[in-house]
Amino acid sequence: MTTEYRVQDMTSEISEKLRSLSHDKFLDYYTAILDVRLKTYFEKLSKEADEYHPFIGSVSDHAGEYILRKGKRIASCSTLLAYHGYADRVDEEILKVCTAIELYRHSILIHDDLIDSDDLRRGGKAFHRLFSNEYDVDFGEGTAVFYGNVLFSKALAILVETGFKKDLLFDVARLLAKGYWEVNESQILDLLFEYEKPSIEDWEAMASKRAASLFKVTMLTGAILVEAPKQEFRLIEEAANHIGYSFDIQDDIIGTFASEEQYGRPSGGDIVRGKKPLHIVYTYQLAENGERGELERILTAKKVEMDDIERAREIIKACGALEKAKTRSREHAKKAIDIICETSMNSSAKSFFNSLINYVSKSLDWYK
Amino acid sequence: MTTEYRVQDMTSEISEKLRSLSHDKFLDYYTAILDVRLKTYFEKLSKEADEYHPFIGSVSDHAGEYILRKGKRIASCSTLLAYHGYADRVDEEILKVCTAIELYRHSILIHDDLIDSDDLRRGGKAFHRLFSNEYDVDFGEGTAVFYGNVLFSKALAILVETGFKKDLLFDVARLLAKGYWEVNESQILDLLFEYEKPSIEDWEAMASKRAASLFKVTMLTGAILVEAPKQEFRLIEEAANHIGYSFDIQDDIIGTFASEEQYGRPSGGDIVRGKKPLHIVYTYQLAENGERGELERILTAKKVEMDDIERAREIIKACGALEKAKTRSREHAKKAIDIICETSMNSSAKSFFNSLINYVSKSLDWYK
Repeated sequence: MTTEYRVQDMTSEISEKLRSLSHDKFLDYYTAILDVRLKTYFEKLSKEADEYHPFIGSVSDHAGEYILRKGKRIASCSTLLAYHGYADRVDEEILKVCTAIELYRHSILIHDDLIDSDDLRRGGKAFHRLFSNEYDVDFGEGTAVFYGNVLFSKALAILVETGFKKDLLFDVARLLAKGYWEVNESQILDLLFEYEKPSIEDWEAMASKRAASLFKVTMLTGAILVEAPKQEFRLIEEAANHIGYSFDIQDDIIGTFASEEQYGRPSGGDIVRGKKPLHIVYTYQLAENGERGELERILTAKKVEMDDIERAREIIKACGALEKAKTRSREHAKKAIDIICETSMNSSAKSFFNSLINYVSKSLDWYK
Repeated sequence: MTTEYRVQDMTSEISEKLRSLSHDKFLDYYTAILDVRLKTYFEKLSKEADEYHPFIGSVSDHAGEYILRKGKRIASCSTLLAYHGYADRVDEEILKVCTAIELYRHSILIHDDLIDSDDLRRGGKAFHRLFSNEYDVDFGEGTAVFYGNVLFSKALAILVETGFKKDLLFDVARLLAKGYWEVNESQILDLLFEYEKPSIEDWEAMASKRAASLFKVTMLTGAILVEAPKQEFRLIEEAANHIGYSFDIQDDIIGTFASEEQYGRPSGGDIVRGKKPLHIVYTYQLAENGERGELERILTAKKVEMDDIERAREIIKACGALEKAKTRSREHAKKAIDIICETSMNSSAKSFFNSLINYVSKSLDWYK
C-alpha cells in the first residue's frame, strides 16, 4: 500500500480496516499511515535542527531516512492495538504516541547496530556507517551514540506533549524509563555472553529484558492511556512477555539460518561475533563433546569463513538444538495467544495479535 | 569534610550552613551530604541489579564508584540553591532530585569520555576503561554506551518517584528531555569541529547547548519545583546561560593550560584530539598566517608530542587569543552575577552563586 495518507482524521477508517484486513495487510496499511506522520515529524525536526546548526539538520535528515526505511512497525502497532482493544476506536493522540514509540525503538536500534558492528540495517547503511564516507569511522560512531540519545529524549518529548491526562502520561514516562534501562541492561548481558558460555538461566535473564521488555512497553502504553481495567494489566504484561520470548527466539533463528534474500543482509553474523542465542545455548547442552568443541572453536575464532558458518548451522541442527529452540518459541506463542484470549480486548485486537503471533510461530518452519 | 552524614532530616542544618559557610566550604559540606545519599542509592541499585544478574550488579558497583569519586557536585548544588533561593529552606524531596541530577550529569560524562577516548576521569579510569583488563576495549565501550543509557533512565525514574506535584515533575521531565537532546546535539558539533574550522558562530551554537544547557536544567529544576514566580524563570534561564558560557570557556582553558596536578590528568588532550575550544577559534582570527598554519599542523597531526602541545600553547597566548577568551568568560560571569542580583532569590542563594561565579572567573588568572 503506497498511497500517501494525509494527516487528518482517519481514525474511523483505521477501525474499519482492522476489522476487514488480515493482520499482514493491516500492518502494511498502518505502516503507511504512521510513516506519513514520521515523515512530517522529521521534516519539522530537521527544520528546527537546521536553524540550530546546518550539520545537526543533516544528521536529523539521516535519522529520518533511517527510520523511514521499509519495515513493519510492529512495536508501535502493538501500542495502537492494545489501545483499540479497550477503546474500540483510535484517535490522533494515540497515533502521536505511536510516533514516539518508533523513535524509542530506533534509538535502541542505533546503539544496538553500533555495538554489534553491524554495517547494514533494513537494506541501508547502519546509522553509524552513514557518516564514514564524509568523515571517518570514529565520527560515525560518536554521532550514533549521541543521536541515539537525542531520539530517546525526543520520544519522551513527543509523549509529554500529547493530549492525554498528565497522570496517565506520567505512568507511561515511568514505563518508558524502566523499559529503557531494562533493554540496556539486557544489551550488556548480550555483549557479555560473546565472551562467556551462558547457562539457560543466563540466557533467560538476558531475554527477559529484550523483546519481552519492548512489548511490555508498547502494549502497556496503549493499555495505560486507554485506562484499561486494572486487572487487565497483569494479563497484558504476561502476554507481552511471552510474545517477546517467542519473537526473540525466532528472530535469532532467522539471524543464523535465513537466506540473505529473506534477511536483507547476510545471516550468520551472530556466529561471527560469537553471540549466544538460545539455539546455541541448547547446543552446549545437547551436542556431543566433539561437536560442541568444534562449535566453540568457530564461535571464538578470530576469522570465520562461510564454511565455518555452515558447519555451525549443521551442528546446531544435528543435535536437536534448533528444533528445541523452535519448540520453546512455539510454546511461548501458544501461551501468549491463550492469555490474549483471556483479556477483555475486543475481537479485532485479539484476532490481530493472535494472527501475528501465529504467523511468527509458523514462520519457524521456513528455517531448516 | 569527611564525616558521614546519616540520611535523616538535616534540612534545617543545610540552611544554617549555607548562611555561615563560604561557597567552597558549603560545596564540600553539601557534597558530603549528597554522597551519602548517592552511596545509599547505589547500594540499593547494585542489590537489585545483582538479583537480576550478578554481572549487572558488578557494573552497577562500578558506576557507584565512578560517580562517588572525589569531586564537587556543582550541578546538583545549583538545583538545591535555586530551590532554597525561593523556598528559604530545603527538604528531603529536593535532595532526591539532586541525586537524580547527578545521575543525569554522569550519564553524559560516561558517553563524553567514551567518544573523547579519555582514559581517566577524576583520578580514576574512565567508565569505558573499567572493563578493559577483564574483557577488552570493545566490551568496555559497549558497556559504557548501554550503562550511560541506564543512568539517564534511572535519573528520570528517581525524579518521578519524588513527592512533588505531578504537574511540576511533568515540567521537569520535559526540561530534562530537552536538556538531554540539546547536550547531545552539542556533543555532535564538538566532535564535528575536530574535523573542521568552526567560526565564532559555530562555536557559540555548540557552547549554547553544553554547560549552558546543563545549568539551565539544574537551576530551572529547582525553580520549577519550588514554584518560583513565573517572571523569575526568564532571569534564571539567562543567568544559567551566562554561567554556562563562563564555566565552559574556563573549563576549556584549564583543559589546555592546567598542570597535571591542577587537572587530575595531563592537560593538552584537546590539542591532541584537534578540538576547537574558544581560545583556538580566536587564534584562527588573531594569529599571523605563519603561526596559524603551525597551529593547524599540530591540531591535524597524527602524532602530537609534548613539544607540539607547548608550542600550541605559546601560539594561543602570543596572539592574544587566550586573553580574549578569558575576557569573554569574565564578561559572561559579570552578566550572570548582575542577573542573579535581579532575581528575588534570598541573599544566601545569591551570595553562593555570586561567590562561585567570582571564584571561577578569578581562577582564570591561574592559567598563564
